Amino acid sequence: MDFSSFLTSLGTSFVIFVILMLLFSWLSGKPGNKVIYYPNRILRGMDPWEGESRTRNPIAWIREALSSTERDVIVMSGVDSAVYFVFLSTVLGIFVLSGIVLLPVLLPVAATDKTGKETNETSKGSFSDLDKLSMGHVKVGSSRLWAFMIATYWVSFVAYYLLWKAYHHVSDLRAAALTSPEVRGEQFAIIVRDIPPPTKDQTRKEQVDTYFKTIYPDTFYRSMVVTDNHEVNKIWEDLEGYKKKLVRAEAIYADSKKTGKPEGIKPTHKTGFLGIFGSKVDSIEFYNEKINELIPKLEAEQKVTLREKQQSSALVFFTSRVTAATAAQSLHAQMVDTWTTMAAPEPRQMIWPNLPKNFYERMIRQYVVYAIVALTIFFYMIPIAFVSAFTTLENLRKFLPFLKSIVDLDALKTVLEAYLPQLALIIFLMFLPKLLLFLSKAEGIPSESHIARAASGKYFYFTVFNVFIGVTLGGTLFDSFKKIQKNPGSAVELLATSLPANATFFLTFVALKFFVGYGLELSRIVPLIIYHLKRKYLCKTEAEVKAAWAPGDLGFTTRVPGDLLVVTIVLCYSVIAPIIIPFGALYFALGWLILRNQVLKVFVPSYESYGRMWPHINTRVVAALLLFQVTMCGFFIIKKFYYAPFLIPLPILSLIFAFVCQKKFYHFFQATALEVACQELKETPNMEQIFRSFIPPSFSTDKAADEDQFEDAVSVVSRSQSFV
Amino acid sequence: MDFSSFLTSLGTSFVIFVILMLLFSWLSGKPGNKVIYYPNRILRGMDPWEGESRTRNPIAWIREALSSTERDVIVMSGVDSAVYFVFLSTVLGIFVLSGIVLLPVLLPVAATDKTGKETNETSKGSFSDLDKLSMGHVKVGSSRLWAFMIATYWVSFVAYYLLWKAYHHVSDLRAAALTSPEVRGEQFAIIVRDIPPPTKDQTRKEQVDTYFKTIYPDTFYRSMVVTDNHEVNKIWEDLEGYKKKLVRAEAIYADSKKTGKPEGIKPTHKTGFLGIFGSKVDSIEFYNEKINELIPKLEAEQKVTLREKQQSSALVFFTSRVTAATAAQSLHAQMVDTWTTMAAPEPRQMIWPNLPKNFYERMIRQYVVYAIVALTIFFYMIPIAFVSAFTTLENLRKFLPFLKSIVDLDALKTVLEAYLPQLALIIFLMFLPKLLLFLSKAEGIPSESHIARAASGKYFYFTVFNVFIGVTLGGTLFDSFKKIQKNPGSAVELLATSLPANATFFLTFVALKFFVGYGLELSRIVPLIIYHLKRKYLCKTEAEVKAAWAPGDLGFTTRVPGDLLVVTIVLCYSVIAPIIIPFGALYFALGWLILRNQVLKVFVPSYESYGRMWPHINTRVVAALLLFQVTMCGFFIIKKFYYAPFLIPLPILSLIFAFVCQKKFYHFFQATALEVACQELKETPNMEQIFRSFIPPSFSTDKAADEDQFEDAVSVVSRSQSFV
Repeated sequence: MDFSSFLTSLGTSFVIFVILMLLFSWLSGKPGNKVIYYPNRILRGMDPWEGESRTRNPIAWIREALSSTERDVIVMSGVDSAVYFVFLSTVLGIFVLSGIVLLPVLLPVAATDKTGKETNETSKGSFSDLDKLSMGHVKVGSSRLWAFMIATYWVSFVAYYLLWKAYHHVSDLRAAALTSPEVRGEQFAIIVRDIPPPTKDQTRKEQVDTYFKTIYPDTFYRSMVVTDNHEVNKIWEDLEGYKKKLVRAEAIYADSKKTGKPEGIKPTHKTGFLGIFGSKVDSIEFYNEKINELIPKLEAEQKVTLREKQQSSALVFFTSRVTAATAAQSLHAQMVDTWTTMAAPEPRQMIWPNLPKNFYERMIRQYVVYAIVALTIFFYMIPIAFVSAFTTLENLRKFLPFLKSIVDLDALKTVLEAYLPQLALIIFLMFLPKLLLFLSKAEGIPSESHIARAASGKYFYFTVFNVFIGVTLGGTLFDSFKKIQKNPGSAVELLATSLPANATFFLTFVALKFFVGYGLELSRIVPLIIYHLKRKYLCKTEAEVKAAWAPGDLGFTTRVPGDLLVVTIVLCYSVIAPIIIPFGALYFALGWLILRNQVLKVFVPSYESYGRMWPHINTRVVAALLLFQVTMCGFFIIKKFYYAPFLIPLPILSLIFAFVCQKKFYHFFQATALEVACQELKETPNMEQIFRSFIPPSFSTDKAADEDQFEDAVSVVSRSQSFV
Repeated sequence: MDFSSFLTSLGTSFVIFVILMLLFSWLSGKPGNKVIYYPNRILRGMDPWEGESRTRNPIAWIREALSSTERDVIVMSGVDSAVYFVFLSTVLGIFVLSGIVLLPVLLPVAATDKTGKETNETSKGSFSDLDKLSMGHVKVGSSRLWAFMIATYWVSFVAYYLLWKAYHHVSDLRAAALTSPEVRGEQFAIIVRDIPPPTKDQTRKEQVDTYFKTIYPDTFYRSMVVTDNHEVNKIWEDLEGYKKKLVRAEAIYADSKKTGKPEGIKPTHKTGFLGIFGSKVDSIEFYNEKINELIPKLEAEQKVTLREKQQSSALVFFTSRVTAATAAQSLHAQMVDTWTTMAAPEPRQMIWPNLPKNFYERMIRQYVVYAIVALTIFFYMIPIAFVSAFTTLENLRKFLPFLKSIVDLDALKTVLEAYLPQLALIIFLMFLPKLLLFLSKAEGIPSESHIARAASGKYFYFTVFNVFIGVTLGGTLFDSFKKIQKNPGSAVELLATSLPANATFFLTFVALKFFVGYGLELSRIVPLIIYHLKRKYLCKTEAEVKAAWAPGDLGFTTRVPGDLLVVTIVLCYSVIAPIIIPFGALYFALGWLILRNQVLKVFVPSYESYGRMWPHINTRVVAALLLFQVTMCGFFIIKKFYYAPFLIPLPILSLIFAFVCQKKFYHFFQATALEVACQELKETPNMEQIFRSFIPPSFSTDKAADEDQFEDAVSVVSRSQSFV
């Protein structure tokens, strides 16, 4: 890629961004779109335009985002979102502080070094102006390299300092959220797994109750034995489906009264495959029938499940936060693989089917999943390398000659050359998260947020290995493997040699990500179009319309690894080609601004883990830092700089830093500290309500009369035993 | 070593053993020796000869040892001793079950293989009869090797089965001891370390009290802030020394009245260096003066210490066992490196100076100690190798020609040849334990039993690396290093080649250890002689006599690694030279018998850790098993047996076994399970008494009146503050 195609890429990105911004200003003002641009506010029953002047000031949202406080974010979107902003601002801080020192120092140092064109390392193909500004332009063995070495130290220490402060801050945020005097159900409950088989004269429930009553005579409230809900859930889902369809059919019928004949047309459908085959029936009657059929079936199945499908796992409720916190952390049984306890997640996060999984089964599943992920990481690299080698224009022209005429158009050629590889990469990465979420769930983790963390960790390694290292070594992948096989020590050196050649690729990648990515994010063009289409052609009922604009959450699983990839790229290039730093800073500044808007107005968090994501983010930023330091070591060796060993303390420091962070902070993110749990509550907790909040939806019924029935069903276990 | 010198060695060992046994029968019957042979019973106020017929039946002790139950051992010597016997009987079981199958199968298989003298691998020097019975005698690539492979599997599975059963049993023993309805002080206390600096308007004691009262409002009893007792201890030791000397001087004076003049001779001594220089003084007066001088000094220093030398650590007492158990396991502070808690050890085990050591200081100390130990392990090998190369008779004759005439005596030559290297080795190993205990203490561990465990673990690695591997590769040490340097993979192969050559050395080593070692153990010749000498010439007072026969404890620090070394040796040779198995079995059978006697009658345990030694023993036996399996792999490769890869599952199985043991049992040995702690107590615990039992001896005074004074001193902190 030459300099002009780089500028073209930047320019088009910027133009797209501006267009999207204008679109946003225009569209977000229209009242019909408010469910797309302000769903979080609407769902909280707030005025969508609260605080904004009704005059369509196109930058009002910026002022609002900048003036919002961390408190606002926590109120509107929870601690996890606030922690995500800590991440964005910390990285932004690292880049700004690095840039302030590195840009004015390193650029002149590199540009003024008199070298011939022979050290043309930075970009593939022809020599470009960008190269003059990079470390590749400095003579081999030059004493100017001292400046680059000091820069490496500066970046590292800035990162240590800001990460340390951020960890402290996040820990305080978590502590503040957990000490909150508001009653949160999950703070009073623990999950108990691996319960040994009960004795013959005992039901599972009696066993659990007796066990915990003995240990916690004063604070034990009640237990809820986990049941195998597979059947109940199936019936319940069918029932809910029919209910929705009934409402829909009724809406259509009501509609037809208005538009067509006054008596209306009763909607009909065929009962066979896909509604195409089978006998034609009156939909409303049919659904009513089905519902009436399923309700008693569901109730019967619920009773059977509660009585007969009890599993070796339970939720236990305590009347005290401190007891629940200690119970979650303490060893209960002499055999460690029985009666294992852990803190309960929020009810909405519970993954019920994973609860009864056995101690060793979980362990084996975990190792198997790790093995699969490791294999996938390795084998994904091969297609990625092919794509990145294949999607150069020369190759396209060679292998797909029919494209030749299009490709040879000059304007198009520049655009294509600029975007093709990056686009291929981004599309490629879209298929991964689902797989990783599935794999993480298969490990047996019982909470959504934990699964998101696990998947996000795996996704990070994917992107770093496959995108960063894969693309860098891409063209020469197979040669590289041969070299590394011969001499494993050469891997670092190889990476260091290949890095500069891809500087512009990654510059474009980052720019594309923030201009186009964040532009799309803010303008919400895609959800907007989908919503309007759905509303026009599909949605018949209120509920359907509401589902059509459901905003979803921030999506940490892919967002955080994506950002971390940018961190990795920018850090690794920060000293070699400091020109990348402003792009990185812009990425995180824009991200902060636009996501602040989205978090306050759009996204609705689907869970709250009180910042448990942070230790993972911190570790991975340090890992990126380590990769940067190791690559720099390799780069200085290539530059034949005799003082390269002076860099060795840095990777060691990074490891110590990670270790100390882990020792000082991490345990509090795994467990609730007692000094935090012992704060007084605003009100006496309503234990009955807490207990009820954990009942899975397929068991909870909305009729008040039915509550007694459920109560019955829970304790029917012991009663039926005594009657039989 | 040839066959005759092996037999000589065995014979002399046996003769020594018989002599020592006869000595024991004779000496233990004499009433004057009962404090040497029955101190544990005497200290417990029991009749020394209880249960034994007064007729000096020389094998009465054997009958008694065999008929004693595990319950007896726990009552007389605690759970730790009982766990040690589980270890002895488990290993004995492994050897007996292995021997029953291996001896009748492998010996004929090896002996009847027709090989020439060319495969003379087993013993250095000339061919001997022993070699015929070993795997070395089987032809290269012979299908008879299948028998040896199956034997390897048999030994491994026997070991897994018995170790698993033993771990279960030990876990039950620990649970039974911890559920005991008797009140044990340490179950109500926790150690708190890394307490952050108190605020200005708070004393340390107030800070600790407030903190724990908030978290445990119902069960918090009281706290004891750790103080820097260095000065107090020094004064107290001086005081105690003078008190002892005073009693002695008075005894001498009283004695002189009886024997000499009726008015007696007042004992005198010189006050200068070693009592040789300086002015002569009346001892009784002098000591009385000193004591009267020190008592107020001690009291003043105690007050100052309690008020001003408070450290960042404390003991916290709870009125409930469950709370103490959960408090020891739970995270208390948001910053993990503050307010760290752990279960308190018994008062007699406390290492006070290690308590206030900082979180990171402890960590750094630990790594430094590990590094030192690793270096010592490596560099100890070199002198050991020299010793074992030097102490062959040929070398002695060559380097120390003046010994030639002695060495050439035929009888002496055989004995020397048999014993010299083993003796050198045993003496060499005597210097280690002190160093290792010192190093382990320097890690910052706060309890004696934990230090013993840590030192014992290090000692095990020492013995295995230096004795087993060192001796095996000994003669060819430097050649070996060169080979391994060239090809690291050859280490296993090299070990496998060298093993058979040392079979007889280790046979003799094991035989020497049990015949002479256990003979000395049982007969207690050395303590007996020392006691009688001391009583005759040195002891003047009751206390001094009592100190002279103080029996000490079992000494797990050296005893367990010593036994584990035998386990390693016997396991590694079990298939190569099965003739070693009976010797191993005999070692553990004799050990069980003789130590049963010693534990019931002689040794007094100096601490109780409720079997926390076991996980370490288990891990190390599995490590020995792993070494055995890996060496066997190497040995089969040397034998050019094409089915050698069939052994690969075994080491993997061992790792899985160790992992599962760890997961299933280990945590309960680190912490108290709540189901165990929640058992009811026989009586309401006397918290005041529990609290007092933890007061260090230099603070506790035996005068009843002084107790109030101490109470004052503890709470003087806050009072003095309010007065000032």
